[in-house]
Parts: sequence; structure tokens; C-alpha cells
Amino acid sequence: MVDLRSDTVTRPGAGMRQAMAEAEVGDDVYGEDPTINALEREVAALFGHEAALFAPTGSMTNQIALQLLVPPGEELLCDADAHVVTYEVGAAGAYGGISTRTWSPVGADLDPEVVAAMIRPAGYHAVPTRAIAVEQTHNRGGGGVIPLPVLRELRRIADEAGVALHCDGARIWHAYVADGVPLAEYGALFDTLSVCLSKGLGAPVGSLVVGSAEKIAQARVVRKRMGGGMRQAGVLAAAGRYALRHHLDRLATDHARAARLAEAVAPYGVLAGPVRTNIVPLDLTKCPFDAHALAAAARADGVLVSVLGPRLARLVTHLDLTDADIDRAVEVLPRVLRG
Amino acid sequence: MVDLRSDTVTRPGAGMRQAMAEAEVGDDVYGEDPTINALEREVAALFGHEAALFAPTGSMTNQIALQLLVPPGEELLCDADAHVVTYEVGAAGAYGGISTRTWSPVGADLDPEVVAAMIRPAGYHAVPTRAIAVEQTHNRGGGGVIPLPVLRELRRIADEAGVALHCDGARIWHAYVADGVPLAEYGALFDTLSVCLSKGLGAPVGSLVVGSAEKIAQARVVRKRMGGGMRQAGVLAAAGRYALRHHLDRLATDHARAARLAEAVAPYGVLAGPVRTNIVPLDLTKCPFDAHALAAAARADGVLVSVLGPRLARLVTHLDLTDADIDRAVEVLPRVLRG
Amino acid sequence: MVDLRSDTVTRPGAGMRQAMAEAEVGDDVYGEDPTINALEREVAALFGHEAALFAPTGSMTNQIALQLLVPPGEELLCDADAHVVTYEVGAAGAYGGISTRTWSPVGADLDPEVVAAMIRPAGYHAVPTRAIAVEQTHNRGGGGVIPLPVLRELRRIADEAGVALHCDGARIWHAYVADGVPLAEYGALFDTLSVCLSKGLGAPVGSLVVGSAEKIAQARVVRKRMGGGMRQAGVLAAAGRYALRHHLDRLATDHARAARLAEAVAPYGVLAGPVRTNIVPLDLTKCPFDAHALAAAARADGVLVSVLGPRLARLVTHLDLTDADIDRAVEVLPRVLRG
Amino acid sequence: MVDLRSDTVTRPGAGMRQAMAEAEVGDDVYGEDPTINALEREVAALFGHEAALFAPTGSMTNQIALQLLVPPGEELLCDADAHVVTYEVGAAGAYGGISTRTWSPVGADLDPEVVAAMIRPAGYHAVPTRAIAVEQTHNRGGGGVIPLPVLRELRRIADEAGVALHCDGARIWHAYVADGVPLAEYGALFDTLSVCLSKGLGAPVGSLVVGSAEKIAQARVVRKRMGGGMRQAGVLAAAGRYALRHHLDRLATDHARAARLAEAVAPYGVLAGPVRTNIVPLDLTKCPFDAHALAAAARADGVLVSVLGPRLARLVTHLDLTDADIDRAVEVLPRVLRG
Repeated sequence: MVDLRSDTVTRPGAGMRQAMAEAEVGDDVYGEDPTINALEREVAALFGHEAALFAPTGSMTNQIALQLLVPPGEELLCDADAHVVTYEVGAAGAYGGISTRTWSPVGADLDPEVVAAMIRPAGYHAVPTRAIAVEQTHNRGGGGVIPLPVLRELRRIADEAGVALHCDGARIWHAYVADGVPLAEYGALFDTLSVCLSKGLGAPVGSLVVGSAEKIAQARVVRKRMGGGMRQAGVLAAAGRYALRHHLDRLATDHARAARLAEAVAPYGVLAGPVRTNIVPLDLTKCPFDAHALAAAARADGVLVSVLGPRLARLVTHLDLTDADIDRAVEVLPRVLRG
Repeated sequence: MVDLRSDTVTRPGAGMRQAMAEAEVGDDVYGEDPTINALEREVAALFGHEAALFAPTGSMTNQIALQLLVPPGEELLCDADAHVVTYEVGAAGAYGGISTRTWSPVGADLDPEVVAAMIRPAGYHAVPTRAIAVEQTHNRGGGGVIPLPVLRELRRIADEAGVALHCDGARIWHAYVADGVPLAEYGALFDTLSVCLSKGLGAPVGSLVVGSAEKIAQARVVRKRMGGGMRQAGVLAAAGRYALRHHLDRLATDHARAARLAEAVAPYGVLAGPVRTNIVPLDLTKCPFDAHALAAAARADGVLVSVLGPRLARLVTHLDLTDADIDRAVEVLPRVLRG
Repeated sequence: MVDLRSDTVTRPGAGMRQAMAEAEVGDDVYGEDPTINALEREVAALFGHEAALFAPTGSMTNQIALQLLVPPGEELLCDADAHVVTYEVGAAGAYGGISTRTWSPVGADLDPEVVAAMIRPAGYHAVPTRAIAVEQTHNRGGGGVIPLPVLRELRRIADEAGVALHCDGARIWHAYVADGVPLAEYGALFDTLSVCLSKGLGAPVGSLVVGSAEKIAQARVVRKRMGGGMRQAGVLAAAGRYALRHHLDRLATDHARAARLAEAVAPYGVLAGPVRTNIVPLDLTKCPFDAHALAAAARADGVLVSVLGPRLARLVTHLDLTDADIDRAVEVLPRVLRG
Repeated sequence: MVDLRSDTVTRPGAGMRQAMAEAEVGDDVYGEDPTINALEREVAALFGHEAALFAPTGSMTNQIALQLLVPPGEELLCDADAHVVTYEVGAAGAYGGISTRTWSPVGADLDPEVVAAMIRPAGYHAVPTRAIAVEQTHNRGGGGVIPLPVLRELRRIADEAGVALHCDGARIWHAYVADGVPLAEYGALFDTLSVCLSKGLGAPVGSLVVGSAEKIAQARVVRKRMGGGMRQAGVLAAAGRYALRHHLDRLATDHARAARLAEAVAPYGVLAGPVRTNIVPLDLTKCPFDAHALAAAARADGVLVSVLGPRLARLVTHLDLTDADIDRAVEVLPRVLRG
């Protein structure tokens, strides 16, 4: 099977497994796991922040950050298709008590003025806006990359309004590789970032939330409340450190492969937008079949595709694919799209 | 002072006060207040529903309904300017654990297709949409009235998706008077409605949530949890019953007066939209002064105006105004707008 | 019917109704209701605190205070039979996210050392205790009065531990009348108090939360979030002011009547404890019938009794009873208890 | 250092690491990790339940179970020293909206009648009790084992009241080894159990919640909301499977070693209770020094001890200790206790 459903499906290879097997570990609830401590220092440094905290998933690191930035009953603004309001099971409201308002889904085509118009001031009458979350790259936005100047303008707006800025950077590595923007430049724009080791980077488990030393000290409490206070998780952190060393620059390969896939399906009018990174979004509105039919047909031919909506599907490239896999997908998908 | 800030400022008159003074009362936590029981039956009947529950505020009746319709961690869709996500202090998230996504603020110009595209199905991956809330008439939408066919189309969409429909009907009485749509027709379109006695109708305190007998039995529990289980509140319910009998049809007067105000300010290019009911929304974007300056200048001349945003203001007509008050406002406001 | 179920059943008399009918009112969400403002000032002064806030119920004022004192995920200690964990529909957890631990139900026989041993310090590992709530007088504790020295010792313990102290003073007026402790002395012992106008004092609706100016400013926000931001509620506040002027000292009558009831039932071995105020707690463990049977038999003879548990019942004296009512109860209850 | 602080400090040995390195893995969010699936089946079978779900921590599996058993605003009963209200950062209230009442801390000396008296029935007035949680073995209760007949009586009481029963079985393996009660017999007594692989069993990370197929399907949703939906966590599950095969029966060694430690400190009057499993609770109330002083002195001599309170400390035996370590502790601790 050529699995194009998600970059979350990758499995650790021999080198990564060896790193895990050899990892020095300790009880991280007591702060005594040297591998986790090293990973946290390294990732904080990558983004130019004071501190970072390891946790089992990107959903947890996003939600920890949101709980730190927005008190219960106050407001977060984000894209209506953002991961934080789509794929995190409503945790911001359910556990954080956070009120969310959303702008129309635009993925990476973020318009800072639209966001600015939604911000509500502190005060007694309307719910005050306390944070804005952006997603870089944008998952449901087809892996699009928000341009640096747009983010800078958003930061300016947030500063003016006294509002915090969070980056759901599960796939920020792709933005770094695609646009060449240093990670520390992204780091400088956000109060908190959530970054993930288990998607493009190919570690089996693990994300980090990045921010000031004060925020990360609070994050440690919230992580425990969410049930994320693992013990000898250094075995996972070792995989993450390995991933950062060996799998970051190779994301360019994933992007090139996604471009090949995009080229193959483009003639059938299903490309939902330009392909910048490792995600190829498909919009089947004008097709005679829907996303489930496409997925079933492709699966019958050995290619797995992700269904995002009745007429929305997605191809994702990742570490566990080979050139031969892409060759096969490039052959199968047009055939399926021809019907 | 001519108080055009809000229709919440009205004070009970002699007739209403007499009704309150003579009200038969009992302990409503035990279900023994005859005046409340009568009011609940009457309002349920007006909307063609099985039952209704009295509570101290429209914020509470809205939030009770939302908590009944949407479990923690699941989703409510509404306008980004809806009262339920703007003026209710984030209670849907903070107390209901509800996840909200919003469409771009359009007030009464609701596009059912936009809403339909936002609905997410039940299932494991994305947060499922469980309810849609609309506001009739729409407060921040300038008192606009959503047309009945639009609401019917929304009901069709909601039914198809298995999603509930709530009406924030704090000012639904205005829609009834402006469009002549019977209240029971509105009632038939919604799973739950929240209606208010203390705005246009002029009672000092009180709202009701309307729905099925089963929902209202649950609402009684939630009302107590929110601290709304009052005792001899029949004194308030008596005012509400009086208001329904004496102040409903006279809303036409408020609409005519709002139209006079609109006509007076229209030449200055500040009218934010058509005026259908008792609210005159002002957009000062093209003025040389902002909303606070406008309010201050008008106040100096004896007219109180409400500020909704840096460049947004609002005039509201209500029971406690006289023709002379409107004459005065019609004289003062153009002078102020000329600068 | 002689209604001994609760002191919440009282109905406003002619004088109180006149005060309500004549009340000067305004929009309290804007802080413009002069009667509410006066009541809040008066009650704050009674307890020697800076400020007070009017709200529709004692459940709301208790829960507002708890939300101010204890952040989500931190801890409140109280009696296992306290009103705040028994009759407020779980709001502390559901809306405040508060963790509660309870000491074995002892009513007014509070042992400060037991409480002290339960307090947990701030820090990363165990849930930190942030507040202790006591109830004066204690409802399920049979209207018992916690002695002043015990409360002082509790205050000392709380101070030493850096923990706040809240008083559910729904019936604190009874403690004042029974023990002669000035209200301001109680006020000095607590960070926040919730006091109720609609139980012993006989107003139809209304409670206040009392505390520092800073806390009460925050309370105003929480009250709105809970749906307690009423408009012209001065009609209710007027009843409360009347009640404070006319119904406070007469509570001694209720106490004397409760003592008469206690004396009448004592020979049947059902008195659950000494009767200090207006509540007569009955424990039917040694009776041949349970509380529901007792209530049914008494009701058949024109006396209403409250059932608190399978073998627990309660008689409560209040403003709406006459000497003749008590005479009747004193005749009926022994007969019923004889079986 | 001889680390007697906790059994959470163990590090995976060579065999376990090899099992992890060789684990077959997949994306568990899609249900495709064969090692996790196998572990879940095995653990469900051990306890005679239909299903189980793997999660990163025992705090998460406890809280998932509690959220399934108790709706927001309803009630859980447990020991005032239970892990679920002590060491889980208030998550039951903060995230589950659960109301908790507690019985006086008794550890394993559970009195079912005390619990029965606390249960409150479904209904409008008092908060209904929906679940009771017990901890087997009891951590703060000194590793005590609740006898099987006591648990059976509690089950009978719970059934009669229609209340669910949850077991925090983080250390249930110790009860099995100490009392010889088959795990399936424990399984039959509880609606849900949380069991941990990373304490006595020595896996680095991981717990499971066990219950009916329906409950575990719901648990999968809650796990994702809590941020516990890991991807290729089969590397962790492999460690857990290894631990179940190799480290279960050897807990008898930990118990014997704990008995040796208890015998060594008993002459100094500090033993807080009988030692049944791997925990030696120390009560220093009658000592001239407090728990921090004891810990500091022992640490200076190469022995780490855990401080639970000003006068409470704890010794815990586990997989990573050797006989020589125990010899050393048996020599050091009496010397320290002599002062």
C-alpha cells in the first residue's frame, strides 16, 4: 500500500530505534530525564525561546499553550478550519473554558485586517480577545505557508491590541524548508509555539510547547493536569532528537514529491490550491464522484488517500514513501480520476 | 436626558408596578409560584411549544439552551457578532465547555449555504456540529430581521445534518411586529428559543427559554446550577405578563421612531444599514470623529448614545421615550454629526 | 397548611410589596439602579467590608465567591453536607472547575484541627488548597451555630496556610440573633460572604456577595457570566432593604417557635441534635417509619415537613407562620410520631 | 544513590529495550498499531473485561474513566487522600466538571457503611452521586490492600444505589501478588479500572483504562480530547507487554524488601501502619525532626526518601533496587532516625 493519508503514519527506522534503545532516561515528573531535558533545551534554542516542554501529542501542546494564554470565558481567534478547533475534540472549550470566534477558512491566505477587525478590547461588556492562533503550515489549508510579512503584520496588530499570538507549528519545519525562514525568526513572532516531532519529522510520538521560562513552568502544571506527565519518556525524546538531526532537511524531498503528485492530478481539475509543501489538497466538487468513492477506488489500486469532507480529499508525502511509491501513485491517481 | 443607549433601560410604569404588587406568588423552586407557572404556560403557547422556563436574564436562558443542545467538547455555529459569543462573558465555553465556530458577521443577511458549508458531521476526527444559533432580530446587526424563507432553508439544512437550531429571540417580538410572522411560526422552526421580557417589552427583569417538555425539565436543573432558581419571582413574572398584554403591539411605535432617527442621520453617511426595527446602527468610519466623541457630544446636548466599537455606535428606541424625546434627538444628532 | 418545609416559602407582605412598588430603579448592568446601589452599600457596611453585589440567588452568590477564590483545578475544603456541595447542582466543579474535598459532616461542630490536617500546600505535586467554606448557620447541620472562637481559630489556621475563607451566610442573620455576635465581627473573619434576603428575612428574591472592592469588581463579571446581570432589579432590592429593616430582629420569634416544636417532638427520640435557631432536624433511624411516611402523615393532617434523606426530615420556622400554626404543629407532629 | 522515593523511577533494562526496538508499530489514532492492539486485548482479558485503551499516564486513564462515569455537575465519592483528588492536578473538576465529596482518609481500611451513608440519590435537589472511586493498592494509604470482601460489599452498595465503581488500580498488581486475588476477580467488581505499566511493573510510560466495549469506544474520544492520541506508541506498548510477562510475579521481592525496611525502622516508632506491599509509610509526628530533615539526612548518606507532608515520608521498593541497596538503606535509615 502506498499510504498518502497523512504524515503521521511514519514508523521509526533502524537508526531512530537504535537511538531510542540507547537513550539515557530518568523520571521526567521529577525533571530527571536527561534526554528529555536535552531535547527541550535544543528545541527552545532552535526557536530562540527560553524554554520548551515535551508532551505526548501536538493536540496537548496546542491546548496547553491556549490554556496559558486565554483564561476561561475569554477569547481566542483563529481560522474556522484551524486544527485547534477542528481536530482537537473541542478541548479548548471543554477543558480550557475558552470562547472561540473564527474567521472564514482561508488557510495560508491570511488577511491581517480581517483578524484585526475581529479583536475585541478588554472590558466588561464584550468577551475580550486574549489570543490569536495561526497554523504554519496550514493542514486543511493544503500545507500552505503564511508569508513572513503577513505574520509580521499580524504581530504588529496583536501587540497594538495587547493580544498574544500562538503558532500551531506542527508542520512549521515545512515552512522553514519551503521558504527558508529561520526557525528563530518564527520563534520571535509568537508568544508560544507548538511543534511536532511525529509528523514530517517521523518520530513515533512527541511534541513540544515553546515559550518563556515562566510560561513553560506553568505549562508543566497544565501538562500534568491533562495527563501528559510521563515518566521515562526519554526513549521518545531520543527519537525526536534523532529526527531533528536527520529528517529536517530531507523535507525538501517530500515537497518535490508532493509537486509530482500535484502535477499528475492537476489536469483533472481537482487541485484545491497551489502545492507549497507536502500536502496536496483535492477538491472534487466538479467530479462525478465524491471523496469516499475516490478513496475506495484508489485503495483498490493500492493507494491510500485521506477523506476530509464529502468532496474534499488529501494526499500527503512523508518519510516512509519511496520514489517507487510516488511512481505508483502518479500512475494510479489519474486513472482513478478519469473514473 | 433622552436615553437612546438601549431598550434595556426602561422602568416599570404604574400599571406594571400595580400588577407586581398584586401578584400571587409561591416558592418557584418547588414549582409553586402560580404567576410564574401561568407566564410559562402562556409563553410556551405563544410559540407553539410544550413548555417554557422563567429565568432572571436572557443571557441565562440562551446559555441554558446551548448547554442542553451541545455537549461539552462539541460545536455550536453562529454569527461572529452574535450576542451569545459577544455579550455573555464567554459562558458557552466557560460553563458549557462548548466549542464555537463563527461565520463572518452578517447580522440578518444570513446565507444558509455559508452555514451549511461549516457543519461538520458526527464522528471521531473533527469536532461534530451539534447546534446552530441565530439571533432574531439581530442586535449588533442593527435590529435586522432574518426573512422567514431564509430561516426555513436553515431549518431544512439543520434537519438534513441532524443539527439543532436555537433562536436567541431576545427581540423576536420586533420581528413579529415588523414582518407580521406569527410567533408560533418562529416557534416551529427552532428546537429552543430564548425570549426576553425586559428589553422591548419593558419588564424590569426576566426571560424565558422555550422548548419541548423534556428539554425544559432539563433546563430546570441547569437553571439551578447557574444560580437562577429564584423563589417568589412571581412578582417579576407579573410584570412580564403585563408587558406581553400591553407592550407588544406598541413596538410599531418604536420602529416608526427609529425610522425618524434614521432619516435624520442618513444625510451624514453614517447609517450602517437599513433600519427595520428599533435599532439604528451608526458606522462612523467616514466621519472626522469616533464613536466616543459622538457619544460625548450628544450627551452634552442631552442625548445618550451607545458605543459598540471605535467607529460603531447605536441608537435604540423603547417604551420610555416620548415623541418629544425623539424630536429632541432629531434636532441634536444632526447638529452633532455636522461636527 | 402549616408549611414547615423551609424558610424559603415566605411571601412578601403588604409593607414589603409597597416598598417594591415604590422603588426607584435603573439599569443595573450599567450600575444605574439606585435601590440596588443603596442595598449593596448597606450590606457591605453591615459586615464591615468595602463592597457587595446583588444577585438573584444564594447559590449564585456562593458560586461567584468560590470562583473568585479558587482557580480551576485547585481546591476548596468544606463539610460533606455543606450547601455548596449539596444543593448547588455541582456548580463549583461544573462551572468553576474547582476540586472539592470534604470533611465528615459535623454541621456546626466544626473541628479546626480536622480542617487544618486537610490543607495541602501550594506546589507542583498535590492539588493546592485555596479556600475553605463554612456555613453559618448550618442548614443540614440543623441550623447549628459555629461558635465565634472556633471561627477565629479557623481564620488563624487559614492565614497561616495562606488559604482564603468563605462564609455561606445564607442564614447568618440567625447566628447574629442567636449568639449576639455582631455581623461585622463575622465579616472580619471572612474574605467573602454570601448572605441571603429570601430565607429568614422573607424577601422574595435576592442575595449578596460581600468582600473587598477588588473582589466585588471581579464578581460583577462572574455574575454576568452566570446570567445574573439583571436590569431594573431595584424592585427586588427594595424588598431586601425592607426585610433588613423589619425582619431581622424578629428572627428571635422563629427561634422560640423552633424550640417549642423541638420540645414537642423530643419525647419521641427523633431530635437529631440541639435546636439553636429556626431549624429542627429529625432523625428517624429509630422510628418504625421513614421520612417520606412521616411527611405524608403530617401532610394529611395539614402540616408540611421537608424530607432530607430516607430517615432525615426537617422542620423550619419562618416569617409566614403564626402562633396558631405552631400550636397546630405541636398538636399534629406528636400524634404522627406516635404512629 | 539508593532511590526509595517512588516506584516510578525505574528505567527500562536491556530486555525491555530490545522489545521496544523490535516492536511492530502503526498509527494508533487510526487503530493500526499492532503492538498497542495486542496489549489492549491482553489487559482487557486479564481483568475479564471487553476492552482496554492505552494512554500515556495513569492520571489520564483515571480521568478518562471518571469523565465517562460522571457527567459535569454530578458527583464522585472517594477517599480524601485518593490519588484522583490529590495528584491529578484537579483534573476531575477542571476538565470533567465533576463534583467530589470525600470520606476521611482511611487508605485500605475502607468502611463500606461510611460510603453508603454519603451516597445521594438521583433527583432535582441534591447533587446525585454517580460513581465511587477506590484505590487498590492505596498509595497515600501506605500501599494497603482493601480486602476482597470489603470490595464486594461496596459493589453491593453501589449496585443498590445505581452508582458506578471505578478502581484506580495503578498498583493493583501488588494486591494480586499480596493477596492472591485473581485480577479477573477485581475486574468483575468494577465498571472501569485504570492500571499502570510504569510503576511496579517498570515500563517507562503507559497505562490502560479497562471496561466495556461501549465505554472504551467513548474513552477513545476522551483520550484524544485530553491530548493522549499518540501515533506509533507501540514502542511503549512493547515495553508494557514485556513488563507484564517478566515483572509481575517478581513484585513479591519488592514486598519482602519493604518488609525488611519496615522492620529496620519500626523500633523508632515511625511506622505509620502495617506494610503489606512495596510502600513503607513513615509518620514522624513523634520524632524530633520533620520529613524534610529526615530526607536531607538520608540523602547525605546516599538514600533518597519521599516527603509527603511536614511529618509524613515514604519508602518505596521497586525493580531497580538490589539487595545491596536494601542492605545500605537498612543500615542508613536507623542511623538517621536515631538523629
